[in-house]
Amino acid sequence: MYELGIVKRHITRAERGAVDRLAPFGVATVHEAMGRVGLMKPYMRPIYAGAQISGTAVTVLLQPGDNWMLHVAAEQIRDGDIVVAACTADNDDGFFGDLLATSFRARGARGLVIDAGVRDVKVLTEMGFPVWSKAVSAKGTVKSTLGSVNVPLVCAGALVQPGDAIVADDDGVVVVPAAMAAKAAEAAAAREANEGDKRARLASGVLGLDMYKMREPLERAGLKYID
Amino acid sequence: MYELGIVKRHITRAERGAVDRLAPFGVATVHEAMGRVGLMKPYMRPIYAGAQISGTAVTVLLQPGDNWMLHVAAEQIRDGDIVVAACTADNDDGFFGDLLATSFRARGARGLVIDAGVRDVKVLTEMGFPVWSKAVSAKGTVKSTLGSVNVPLVCAGALVQPGDAIVADDDGVVVVPAAMAAKAAEAAAAREANEGDKRARLASGVLGLDMYKMREPLERAGLKYID
Amino acid sequence: MYELGIVKRHITRAERGAVDRLAPFGVATVHEAMGRVGLMKPYMRPIYAGAQISGTAVTVLLQPGDNWMLHVAAEQIRDGDIVVAACTADNDDGFFGDLLATSFRARGARGLVIDAGVRDVKVLTEMGFPVWSKAVSAKGTVKSTLGSVNVPLVCAGALVQPGDAIVADDDGVVVVPAAMAAKAAEAAAAREANEGDKRARLASGVLGLDMYKMREPLERAGLKYID
Amino acid sequence: MYELGIVKRHITRAERGAVDRLAPFGVATVHEAMGRVGLMKPYMRPIYAGAQISGTAVTVLLQPGDNWMLHVAAEQIRDGDIVVAACTADNDDGFFGDLLATSFRARGARGLVIDAGVRDVKVLTEMGFPVWSKAVSAKGTVKSTLGSVNVPLVCAGALVQPGDAIVADDDGVVVVPAAMAAKAAEAAAAREANEGDKRARLASGVLGLDMYKMREPLERAGLKYID
Amino acid sequence: MYELGIVKRHITRAERGAVDRLAPFGVATVHEAMGRVGLMKPYMRPIYAGAQISGTAVTVLLQPGDNWMLHVAAEQIRDGDIVVAACTADNDDGFFGDLLATSFRARGARGLVIDAGVRDVKVLTEMGFPVWSKAVSAKGTVKSTLGSVNVPLVCAGALVQPGDAIVADDDGVVVVPAAMAAKAAEAAAAREANEGDKRARLASGVLGLDMYKMREPLERAGLKYID
Amino acid sequence: MYELGIVKRHITRAERGAVDRLAPFGVATVHEAMGRVGLMKPYMRPIYAGAQISGTAVTVLLQPGDNWMLHVAAEQIRDGDIVVAACTADNDDGFFGDLLATSFRARGARGLVIDAGVRDVKVLTEMGFPVWSKAVSAKGTVKSTLGSVNVPLVCAGALVQPGDAIVADDDGVVVVPAAMAAKAAEAAAAREANEGDKRARLASGVLGLDMYKMREPLERAGLKYID
Repeated sequence: MYELGIVKRHITRAERGAVDRLAPFGVATVHEAMGRVGLMKPYMRPIYAGAQISGTAVTVLLQPGDNWMLHVAAEQIRDGDIVVAACTADNDDGFFGDLLATSFRARGARGLVIDAGVRDVKVLTEMGFPVWSKAVSAKGTVKSTLGSVNVPLVCAGALVQPGDAIVADDDGVVVVPAAMAAKAAEAAAAREANEGDKRARLASGVLGLDMYKMREPLERAGLKYID
Repeated sequence: MYELGIVKRHITRAERGAVDRLAPFGVATVHEAMGRVGLMKPYMRPIYAGAQISGTAVTVLLQPGDNWMLHVAAEQIRDGDIVVAACTADNDDGFFGDLLATSFRARGARGLVIDAGVRDVKVLTEMGFPVWSKAVSAKGTVKSTLGSVNVPLVCAGALVQPGDAIVADDDGVVVVPAAMAAKAAEAAAAREANEGDKRARLASGVLGLDMYKMREPLERAGLKYID
Repeated sequence: MYELGIVKRHITRAERGAVDRLAPFGVATVHEAMGRVGLMKPYMRPIYAGAQISGTAVTVLLQPGDNWMLHVAAEQIRDGDIVVAACTADNDDGFFGDLLATSFRARGARGLVIDAGVRDVKVLTEMGFPVWSKAVSAKGTVKSTLGSVNVPLVCAGALVQPGDAIVADDDGVVVVPAAMAAKAAEAAAAREANEGDKRARLASGVLGLDMYKMREPLERAGLKYID
Repeated sequence: MYELGIVKRHITRAERGAVDRLAPFGVATVHEAMGRVGLMKPYMRPIYAGAQISGTAVTVLLQPGDNWMLHVAAEQIRDGDIVVAACTADNDDGFFGDLLATSFRARGARGLVIDAGVRDVKVLTEMGFPVWSKAVSAKGTVKSTLGSVNVPLVCAGALVQPGDAIVADDDGVVVVPAAMAAKAAEAAAAREANEGDKRARLASGVLGLDMYKMREPLERAGLKYID
Repeated sequence: MYELGIVKRHITRAERGAVDRLAPFGVATVHEAMGRVGLMKPYMRPIYAGAQISGTAVTVLLQPGDNWMLHVAAEQIRDGDIVVAACTADNDDGFFGDLLATSFRARGARGLVIDAGVRDVKVLTEMGFPVWSKAVSAKGTVKSTLGSVNVPLVCAGALVQPGDAIVADDDGVVVVPAAMAAKAAEAAAAREANEGDKRARLASGVLGLDMYKMREPLERAGLKYID
Repeated sequence: MYELGIVKRHITRAERGAVDRLAPFGVATVHEAMGRVGLMKPYMRPIYAGAQISGTAVTVLLQPGDNWMLHVAAEQIRDGDIVVAACTADNDDGFFGDLLATSFRARGARGLVIDAGVRDVKVLTEMGFPVWSKAVSAKGTVKSTLGSVNVPLVCAGALVQPGDAIVADDDGVVVVPAAMAAKAAEAAAAREANEGDKRARLASGVLGLDMYKMREPLERAGLKYID
């Protein structure tokens, strides 16, 4: 993986309907529905609270201190995409700001996930263009070395294939392989179906110990109550 | 300390009245009133700004990636408690979310302090359930290895005994030994009593150099003014 | 540099008009206008979102766990200053709180930039006194060892001379040498002048690839499009 | 990827001859020969200096605080393998010590690469069993939750497929896709071929500026020499 | 805990014989024998490889940037002690160097464990005076603010009572409560007794899967072997 | 400061004799002799233990992921220099390896101090070419963007002017302004002169408390001895 100097124009995007169904469940539920895999590292934080989106990944591999490929990526964005950018080395420079956000939005992007830095966060917040990043930095970047667009890459510890479904909210970012998007949406829905009932019971004072029948396994594991 | 597989049911909680008087003073003032001890490390951050609480500690010792003992702890919560959770190893997983918060609140908990990760932060914020944590992460946990409840433990660098008073706000978290809660409240009140006057004088342009009579000791220490 | 035990009373401040023109451009634009130099490290974060200020630097060199020199610095503040504080060693203690903020404001300070910790952030937020810091911590400090005021120092990786222009916003903090303030304001204005047009074109769907004429250099660099 | 509870028994290993030719080139050269891709993050450090190995990857996905799957992995080791272990969450526990090293060596393993902690480093050093890890920690682990063996995984930021060639030395760890091992060995050999000559010329005082013909491009880029 | 300005002269040290029996087992084994508790955080590293010691804790609580209390502590050292120092705030200054080491050794100290910085490491290495620390730094400290000696404290996440047994080696540092030292030594001996046999069997190629009878519980947990 | 695209050919180097006298004192003593200023941050670590050097600074400002200016710097090296390199943004790439070391040594360089990454550390160790760096990484760099040579810069938190004296050993790196080198050497010599006597007294069991006459000030500060 990680071929440099490549732009893949045609990628297989996760089915739109399934992708759109994922956002309301949120990252924690989708991650559980997937069998607890696909999460990016928790250092990826939103630039403002409250955004909750899903979309299909256009991937960008950047070089440290160089945002040239984000401009190349803009052309590959289709309506409903989320740009997912990684860098060949840890780097906190501000690779992305309000001009690129304007361009990405005009192309149909719903947000950006970048394992590096971002700037103009006040304007981005006013625009309502959500970004999940490793850092905020005003440090500018050059445009001189090639990376790639729409190659598989590792972003914040998670493998992302172009076209994969991405879900992001205040808890972080999760990747759903394109072929599993529909199944993940179903599993998330099933999972959430009985959460309302559980929540009501817990709110009434029922203990998880009883609701989840944990007392017996705890005792078997050797838990001792003392006074 | 740190015995594993133990739940202590009866603990001596700091006196409620004293504990309740602590919250309005805030963490910095209580910490000063205590002689500058008992603070957790500054990496403990609130999931949303503005919460300011005090309560009595129910302590939970967790294993990495395993939140079983939080369910065990729920049963031990009494009205006015704050759950204080530590882990036997550094771990940023999301040990706590909105279902546990619903249960904790139903049991009377005022908040959670956890030296690990938390998830569902958007819902927790909407619920107004305050959490101070080391990380936010959607990563789920298992329920298979015993820790303990209501044992003394070290949370974010501070020793916490079950029943201790806890104060938490935007500045962090401070631990007040149960037997010192009343005295700490008094000392905090005394400290704050003359802050109003100080603030007014400083606001009028009086210098701390003069108000605190620092000029002479500064000169003795060798401070030189040059032009 | 870094002479200890010195307070310089007379410093040459950047020209006020130029300094005041810098704030609206924001840190990223000023940093670009300066030729991409002078930024502090991205770990410097505002205690609340949205503040955007410029001012002239009163510098303070602190000792770890000791905020004595902040009191000394208060006397040197003139209307329109920003206090810039560094520490002789990494230290996250809460060197600054609401009383010092009251005093600094009364002396005319517009904000604080400190490569260390700050406390009372809730009150500071209510006061609207902006602070950029490395950490938030309720940990108190002593007053027993001399540092210096208005000496050149390194704050978060950037060299600051007393009197330099400082610009700070949600993206971070940038230092403009006093003699360059007017020129930086001009360059920032020139830079921003054609941003509106660029933004409009990008918003209409024009690609940066075409607007910035990147296609030819990308091809020359060897970029390959594949299907 | 990241299916849990799976052990893949038959994997396609990189060709042994090619793999064995890689070690002497070292990580930096192989990484260059690969087009500068495939490196693990630089926080992966050897437990002792001087080891330089290559081998084929047996991959292990661990759960935090749980080393069960390392025991499962032992059975899948073939002569010439390097075990590559990642964890579903950041965790510094000591997953591996001298007993597992004894077992791994008996099965033919040449070393371990683990994005987590290791212990018994003094004995491992005496045994000459090389390990690259994120941490050293005596903290023990449990054996209760399933991970997987020989699934694709991300280790320290690099994608590893079971059977890939791994090269590790004091500079870090690089992953070579199984199908590219022979080609990488050739490219590394070609690269090293003219290093001897370059080194001799540089040692004689010839400047890289002249040897690499950099003066003209530097001038074109605008470099100015001043006195 | 953490009373400031106190020196406790008489402490109850763990029984010498038991303490001396602990060193040869090493940290990992003692930690296991204790039920996996009492470890300091893994960021505590030895300044040179190969030291393996045990001793009784003389505790020192330091203020940031101030090593006064280490001089006070020297007087409290008895033959066989290990000095364990923590700081009221994170601080990497070089609190300890070769002169203090000379003094500590003359008083009978076997080493130092310090959750802060140390300097003169080359000379300390030549002297064979082992130190486990968070950092190495030449930064000097002042002598102006009181801490305490022989109070309970938290060092690198572990609670230490004066007189506790300390074991330190290349894997880190573990604390054994004074009253448990003899029992821990026995448990460690028992644990090590059958390690030789295990090692031999593993070296002969026997799998842990069989030796520890893991196949059945793995199958019950749902592990699937695929080809 | 930090002008880009500049090479200053003529710099005023600290006087050679004074510079050469500094190395044997080591970093901690020189830093003390200077009044405790000029130290680089403690994350700067030697690639191998035991090197102790002094020299005059040739400074290099690098761009992230780009080592072009190290080649430019080679030409500016004179016998007895130490190259001091900083980067416009945090970056751990391997900017320097054995070929550059061969060239630097041929030009007379005594070592490298780089606030970034280095590679080929095994060969550098065999060559005995000492490097102090923030990281070790095999990651290669490009040669496409200008930085500067022999401009003032901030390296690991310390201001360095071209020509300044640099001292580096296992404790870290300290910068001595060129004009102060002779004075610093004298002060270091004076400081060391009475260290031998102090060491002998401490070794004989005399306490620092008595030797430094600390008992009275400690009592005045309020220290209490309890039993």
